[in-house]
Amino acid sequence: MNDKPSVLRPTDDEARQLARQLMAEAPWVALAVLEPATGWPSISRTIIALDEDGVPFILVSALAAHTGALKTDGRCSFLAGEPGKGDPLAYPRLSVQAQAFQVTREHPDFPNLRDRFLNRHPKAQLYIDLPDFCFFRLMPQSGSLNGGFGKAFRLEGQDLVGRA
Amino acid sequence: MNDKPSVLRPTDDEARQLARQLMAEAPWVALAVLEPATGWPSISRTIIALDEDGVPFILVSALAAHTGALKTDGRCSFLAGEPGKGDPLAYPRLSVQAQAFQVTREHPDFPNLRDRFLNRHPKAQLYIDLPDFCFFRLMPQSGSLNGGFGKAFRLEGQDLVGRA
Repeated sequence: MNDKPSVLRPTDDEARQLARQLMAEAPWVALAVLEPATGWPSISRTIIALDEDGVPFILVSALAAHTGALKTDGRCSFLAGEPGKGDPLAYPRLSVQAQAFQVTREHPDFPNLRDRFLNRHPKAQLYIDLPDFCFFRLMPQSGSLNGGFGKAFRLEGQDLVGRA
Repeated sequence: MNDKPSVLRPTDDEARQLARQLMAEAPWVALAVLEPATGWPSISRTIIALDEDGVPFILVSALAAHTGALKTDGRCSFLAGEPGKGDPLAYPRLSVQAQAFQVTREHPDFPNLRDRFLNRHPKAQLYIDLPDFCFFRLMPQSGSLNGGFGKAFRLEGQDLVGRA
């Protein structure tokens, strides 16, 4: 194999639906940001919820390194989809490249996002009202859905968000 | 809270041991690379094994986007540690920033890494001998271990690898 054959399948509604489902049901995601001092990618575990347009958002503490990184450079990426037993590469996962936008505690959208986040993650009640916590919306720019070996799809931002 | 108190605990042997255990036992990791065209971080799911010095390494296909990214810029990061039931943020995870070094099929270390990888991931037998597959060693530069709320440790590369 000297050529690079395309391993992508044409994006269809089934792929879009699976991608949205992976975001909606993810118990957690791996979030990659750019470390300001070094430009190195840096990953952390975080939990997400979706706003009324399906846009994922995260709750972060000002004390966390990823918060400072996102304020400096909003380019980020997250991986959703949790494998079950057996080969982890046989289970679907979605990688999304997103632009992060902060939603401070004073932002008019904050109360609505707070309600949605608590509905999705009731245990966040323990810290969501601490003064150093805020949200970031992660606006999808593109995505890559891997439904298992040989089932790869490239998605655009509009495939992932917007009311159906 | 206007100041940023340190949430880090002093690194101890227990932290080093947990970090190495998370790498050794990870059924999969989230790998973040830098997308060459955009500089955006990009994440994918991958499986790792450790060489005889505890250095993690991955098996990649030349067809995968992360392979091209790592050849262009070896700065990467991975997240290890899989939550069980309940709050995913209560389970330990390790984030490692690493420099990737390719091990081609012609490299003298290839046969040894191949054996170790198959020992850790027997199902890789299905594709490890395809001509477009090779390894990358991910040499840890630094790490961040989160053992649950309030239990964060900063690790250096030498905390993570090297014979004990």
